[in-house]
Amino acid sequence: VNPDLASERQTPSFSVEKLTALLDGGEENTRIRRAVVEAIENDPVFSRENQYFQSQNEKYEAAVRKAVHLQKKMHEMGWTENGPEFKYIYSALSGEIAFLLHSVFMRSISMLGSDKQVAKWIPLATQYQLIGCYAQTELGHGTYLQGLETTAVFDVATQEFILNTPKISAIKWWPGDMGRSATHTVVFAQLYVQGKCYGVHPFIVQIRSLWDHSLCPGVTAGDIGPRMNFEHTDNGYLMLQNVRVPRENMLSKFCEVQPDGTYVRQGSQQINYFTMTAVRITLISYEAVIPLMKACTIAIRYSVVRRQSKLKPGEEEAKILDFQTQQEKLLPHVAAAYAFHFINDYLQDLFNRGYEEIQRENFDMLPELHAFSSGFKAMVTQHCASAVKVCLLACGGHGYSLLSGLPSLCTKILASCIYEGENTILFLQTARFLIKCFMAASAGHPVPPSVTYLAAVKPGKCPAKNKLDFLSPDIYTNAYQHAAVRLISSAAAKLQDLIQSGVKKHDAWNECTVQLVQAVKAHCHYLTVKNFVETVERLETKGGIQRIMKHLCDLFALHGIFSNTGAFLHDGYISGAQMDMVTASYLDLLAVIRKDAVPLVDAFDFTDKTLNSALGSYDGQVYQRLYEWAQKSPTNTQMNPAYERYLKPLLHKKLAKL
Amino acid sequence: VNPDLASERQTPSFSVEKLTALLDGGEENTRIRRAVVEAIENDPVFSRENQYFQSQNEKYEAAVRKAVHLQKKMHEMGWTENGPEFKYIYSALSGEIAFLLHSVFMRSISMLGSDKQVAKWIPLATQYQLIGCYAQTELGHGTYLQGLETTAVFDVATQEFILNTPKISAIKWWPGDMGRSATHTVVFAQLYVQGKCYGVHPFIVQIRSLWDHSLCPGVTAGDIGPRMNFEHTDNGYLMLQNVRVPRENMLSKFCEVQPDGTYVRQGSQQINYFTMTAVRITLISYEAVIPLMKACTIAIRYSVVRRQSKLKPGEEEAKILDFQTQQEKLLPHVAAAYAFHFINDYLQDLFNRGYEEIQRENFDMLPELHAFSSGFKAMVTQHCASAVKVCLLACGGHGYSLLSGLPSLCTKILASCIYEGENTILFLQTARFLIKCFMAASAGHPVPPSVTYLAAVKPGKCPAKNKLDFLSPDIYTNAYQHAAVRLISSAAAKLQDLIQSGVKKHDAWNECTVQLVQAVKAHCHYLTVKNFVETVERLETKGGIQRIMKHLCDLFALHGIFSNTGAFLHDGYISGAQMDMVTASYLDLLAVIRKDAVPLVDAFDFTDKTLNSALGSYDGQVYQRLYEWAQKSPTNTQMNPAYERYLKPLLHKKLAKL
Repeated sequence: VNPDLASERQTPSFSVEKLTALLDGGEENTRIRRAVVEAIENDPVFSRENQYFQSQNEKYEAAVRKAVHLQKKMHEMGWTENGPEFKYIYSALSGEIAFLLHSVFMRSISMLGSDKQVAKWIPLATQYQLIGCYAQTELGHGTYLQGLETTAVFDVATQEFILNTPKISAIKWWPGDMGRSATHTVVFAQLYVQGKCYGVHPFIVQIRSLWDHSLCPGVTAGDIGPRMNFEHTDNGYLMLQNVRVPRENMLSKFCEVQPDGTYVRQGSQQINYFTMTAVRITLISYEAVIPLMKACTIAIRYSVVRRQSKLKPGEEEAKILDFQTQQEKLLPHVAAAYAFHFINDYLQDLFNRGYEEIQRENFDMLPELHAFSSGFKAMVTQHCASAVKVCLLACGGHGYSLLSGLPSLCTKILASCIYEGENTILFLQTARFLIKCFMAASAGHPVPPSVTYLAAVKPGKCPAKNKLDFLSPDIYTNAYQHAAVRLISSAAAKLQDLIQSGVKKHDAWNECTVQLVQAVKAHCHYLTVKNFVETVERLETKGGIQRIMKHLCDLFALHGIFSNTGAFLHDGYISGAQMDMVTASYLDLLAVIRKDAVPLVDAFDFTDKTLNSALGSYDGQVYQRLYEWAQKSPTNTQMNPAYERYLKPLLHKKLAKL
Repeated sequence: VNPDLASERQTPSFSVEKLTALLDGGEENTRIRRAVVEAIENDPVFSRENQYFQSQNEKYEAAVRKAVHLQKKMHEMGWTENGPEFKYIYSALSGEIAFLLHSVFMRSISMLGSDKQVAKWIPLATQYQLIGCYAQTELGHGTYLQGLETTAVFDVATQEFILNTPKISAIKWWPGDMGRSATHTVVFAQLYVQGKCYGVHPFIVQIRSLWDHSLCPGVTAGDIGPRMNFEHTDNGYLMLQNVRVPRENMLSKFCEVQPDGTYVRQGSQQINYFTMTAVRITLISYEAVIPLMKACTIAIRYSVVRRQSKLKPGEEEAKILDFQTQQEKLLPHVAAAYAFHFINDYLQDLFNRGYEEIQRENFDMLPELHAFSSGFKAMVTQHCASAVKVCLLACGGHGYSLLSGLPSLCTKILASCIYEGENTILFLQTARFLIKCFMAASAGHPVPPSVTYLAAVKPGKCPAKNKLDFLSPDIYTNAYQHAAVRLISSAAAKLQDLIQSGVKKHDAWNECTVQLVQAVKAHCHYLTVKNFVETVERLETKGGIQRIMKHLCDLFALHGIFSNTGAFLHDGYISGAQMDMVTASYLDLLAVIRKDAVPLVDAFDFTDKTLNSALGSYDGQVYQRLYEWAQKSPTNTQMNPAYERYLKPLLHKKLAKL
């Protein structure tokens, strides 16, 4: 181990093992997770060794190979979809696996299909007798599902639906696993019966032959070309020309077209929102928080190995983490990774409770859950995407090398700001909920628990008298609450003023959206701080866990104030003089947490193979690894045809003249 | 042309052609630039058609081919390095060309070499009898040049320098053109003569044979592997083992080792700073402002073609640029692109004046120029990198496709935050200058013109009474000035307090760096606003140019206040009530500028081939182009080996069971 890194681990102020167990939700989980990671990483089929050198084709092939092999592996290991190991597999594979949409295909049939449809299709899919995907988004249509243009016209004569892509903007575009793999898909299309449009419905459509994988008649499909990441996925496109499917292929749990063309709606579709909620909550952890933890691990370890410039004349060059600016770049994001981990735990609990209620046919929690999952998905992915970029830049030139592992984290996390609901749209979904609750609370009506604070608007000022007061959770939590209430109430007031002055409701809403987004962010930030504080209060004091988490909680809270001072200064709740105290306390905390920086990221417990980073390995052999890994690059292992073709003639022509 | 895009061009409030000429610095320049772009784009060798589908090897080969062809092209076209066309070539090629370091090799010889050395090497290099590069950065050493570890020991007996890479951290790492192309390089190494170290000096070293391109004895070199972008460049590494070069190969304009080993220093090295200054100013335009202009063009055009969700019930889906949140994402960056273009003009003028002075051996302007180039390089690249990311995300899923052109802009501009001085370090260089000037100004000493405002600290409050007052340049410029002075003076005060309380100077400095960076940003932001205001005042009123630029200037200024309210609220210079006026004025401006959004980016005058974007073409045929371009992807044009290998066995095994 590099001595500069080893020295950082000598006197941690807390037990790293205990902190890891806390993050895993118990020692037993840690054990299971490590066993899964070990089994995956020791299997050469799952190796990511050449990840940074592969072409899109090679990555796709590797992802398919892994997906096929995973079935075998799960069987061998005795892992099942309901077992405790399952949730660690995706993460252990770092997501570079094919057929992820196959499970979405299955889920949509389970959720939207009739019992008969479930009985027919789910066993086929479970045994991989087909490969499914999910065709919703179109070239010209994303978030706004009502706008989809693909059509499905019912033909009473043949008892079939005729599916068509009427124009270019209606081409299905982006579905994962569709470009080169899937044999079947669930297509969302506008249902027409006897000339009348009944809106968007889901249809099971076969797109490729099970025998030779050729495209079915009337089907045009392919890969949409390279993206910023996800090269292992065959995101695809699909055009349908008079493709006929039997009447039984429309998923009909909630709506059915009867043989005579009668359209029947049955049951409640509210549960659909619940699926999106589940997906968003899951991705917060896998696609945002874990990548941020990885980026922090890499950047922090590198920052104690890398030495540059002298802090004190005459001494050796300093570890770059000893520069205040470097601490300020990285440590708040370590704190944020913990904060988001804890809020995700909270959301998961809330979701589980909601799920129980829904199974009892009680949908009361749905609006709050939807608002939570939307707002936090947007806030956490946006924060984490920025933070991973900061980690990359904080590693200078070497961070920019793919071998650091940071560029792929950076480009992948960017996508999480777009998929499963574009972030701005999600913020505004939460805004609708908040405004509604604010109005209700103002009128004295009951509101869901997470927003009762909106009713408790009290004027007043922050009572802090010195910088130490700002290490009091009450002080900063109240400041966050105050700022959130102010932003929500002022956006609501503007909205009402506009409407009262005669502006039409939808125009008024649009004119308030910039401020509404700010208000939602403040709301989510407040809840994250509050939840962090409550989490710290519940922690055991043994092993120094509570003490270090208190520091991180303080840092997260004060960083948020320091980076957004205006929100707190605006109405004088925090004065300029108090803000100077915030700054002082915040900068002091950086120096305190600096000492535990490496143990804090060690506790994330990533293996070297998981990080796949020349900068971030546990042993800190940064330069050795960069050099060794570079040797494997195809630019070094292949000949240089450009020499023979262009350089040799250039140089020799001139030499000949000498 | 897509009708939604065409309608945006029908009633511009200004002459697009006049605005283009303004940006080019005159109609004649526009003409020359267009001629260069046309000549380059009509030449198939320079085509970037397959850019998004190429491997690192293919990109490198294309870049070499282009570099070799460019020589011929320049000869054919009569373009010379001193001609008016030259400055447009790099931009027209979008930078995807090899041998850019060859000119740095030449420049370092010209600047650091004796007349004899210049006479020997420059003609060889000019005629491409060798390919040069520049070997400074090492695996373990970047910014802090004194820390370089490569050694050059003078051997009196043979009159040679013996160059060595003593350890792994001393491997030269990152030099462009070194991995696979260069035959020669300038190596920076610690000079030792008779056991004494004289610090870092430059040496010309041959690394590859001119005949067969094999590595010279004692030389190990190769490619450092893939990066986040710059795949066309062979960034390389270099290890030297007892490589001997004659005494004449140490560049000796300023320092020489005489035959007997006597070390002689001569002349002034101050001019070296001037080179870095020149490079930084050049890159602000090419690597930050132009990419931002491209990203804005793509995102704005796409945002009037893309329709999503209904603004008003019953109407068709709205252009996404009609949503306030989308305007708020994009329009301030259009304004910023103009602001940075104008500040770059200003810096260029300052630089030219400085250059004249330096040629008269007057170095007085150097500190200010150095501070300017450092601070603005950091501020502009940081802002543009974030802004390009915003443009990408604002285009949703399609922005994430490489075919949009945005991912490559996004990953390339990120590098500009690191190279030619890492941004935080550059901000702190400017901070040293500012603190020095602030102290001098406080003591009544004269200071350079750009910082005289520091002496004019006046207390007081912003006099604005309504939202229209915030469209007065005096009002907002004074607010920016006030905030900058406050931040600089409070950082200076903290620094002095710490030192007076006994903290050592370097520790005190480190403890102030987070705040110093904030102060420098405020200073640069102030100067950018001030320069924009002054530029607008000088504009002709014909063609509506001045009016639209005034709007953009207001938007740039108010956006800066809106996004950083705390800096203005802190001491009450702007009150909370006034801040609400800022917000109102700012949001009003978005709606005003929205109308001219397309003409404003049309004025940047990029050809479709330059943008190379399926989303951003002049005709707005977004979906058509995405579909057509995707067909060319190797994932569609090649077979799918994963099917035969993994999918067929999987599917058929199951089918057989049926």
